[in-house]
Amino acid sequence: MKKGLLVIISGPAGSGKGTIVKRVRELAPFDFSVSATTRKPRQGEEEGVHYYFVTKEDFEKKIAEGEMLEYAQYVGNYYGTPKKPVEKALAEGKNIILDIEVKGALQVKEKMPEAVMIYVLPPDYETLLARIRGRGTETEDVIQKRMTEARTEIKTFPKYDYVVINRENGIDEAANDVLAILHAETMRTSRNAEIPETFFS
Amino acid sequence: MKKGLLVIISGPAGSGKGTIVKRVRELAPFDFSVSATTRKPRQGEEEGVHYYFVTKEDFEKKIAEGEMLEYAQYVGNYYGTPKKPVEKALAEGKNIILDIEVKGALQVKEKMPEAVMIYVLPPDYETLLARIRGRGTETEDVIQKRMTEARTEIKTFPKYDYVVINRENGIDEAANDVLAILHAETMRTSRNAEIPETFFS
Repeated sequence: MKKGLLVIISGPAGSGKGTIVKRVRELAPFDFSVSATTRKPRQGEEEGVHYYFVTKEDFEKKIAEGEMLEYAQYVGNYYGTPKKPVEKALAEGKNIILDIEVKGALQVKEKMPEAVMIYVLPPDYETLLARIRGRGTETEDVIQKRMTEARTEIKTFPKYDYVVINRENGIDEAANDVLAILHAETMRTSRNAEIPETFFS
Repeated sequence: MKKGLLVIISGPAGSGKGTIVKRVRELAPFDFSVSATTRKPRQGEEEGVHYYFVTKEDFEKKIAEGEMLEYAQYVGNYYGTPKKPVEKALAEGKNIILDIEVKGALQVKEKMPEAVMIYVLPPDYETLLARIRGRGTETEDVIQKRMTEARTEIKTFPKYDYVVINRENGIDEAANDVLAILHAETMRTSRNAEIPETFFS
């Protein structure tokens, strides 16, 4: 059984990465990774479907044991990606795609260096600004904060393997770019290291 | 102007790499790399088209100056790939594909580490053997020699970036694999290192 691919997609607010991930999921089969959290379940949320709901003690134990691929705290609660279910899915040949921000992405890459890291960007600065403004839901303060975040985050660009440019009306093109990357990655000699031995056996 | 890709394709006799390269050239634009040689031109061979015809002294001078990307001797003559025309084409955004054997491929990779190295293989040993036998032009001695060569060459497999499997009637599939690799490679962050700077300038 050939191992599945772990794909990490990041990009600034307004890059459109969420929409690209949605489209990629429509075009190719991916397993969902379920996050763990210490916050209480909301109405209708199911254990193991929306989240794994765990206690603060359990979460911190998992962190200490290296069992969280990445995690962060948000409004007093932990959120993170447990390692075991991801490893199990990959071992079963399933692909997993994680839409996560830069800090989490770098944590995952450290624990699983075989992860394919993709950074999504709009074609230029003006488009990024226009997309954030275009949402119409953010105050000027929040917009400036997002742009500053983007400026800081892009310094991690070289840590990513690939960059996908999300052009105007370019969701299908960008999704196709991601699929070409995944297709190519399955052909990496490092992911087919058994071939020299098996071929002549 | 974005730099072109230098693509190196190798594979054992019977892998079908020649046919794949031909098909890839039909599907995507590539510049031809013209080899240099010290052998005399044959009837109808043109300088700079079929070969660059140079003297032994010139060839050896080019080797000494690091101006040959790769070279080999064959029946008393030198054959090789001059570096300058390749670099010029790449700088002009043209892609170049080199169909060369393993020793030459590794020489090129050393001089131009950005080269994309692809190794072509049939699906299995039996198919390789059948394809070499199937040519019907080789003696049993030559067939055994080819298989021994393949067995030795495959040890360099990890030096290649990608492996493309050429299945039965799979030329279009294999050509498509190569194109997906090239598409993905254009999106490598290492080939787009200017983005973090230009995006926010």
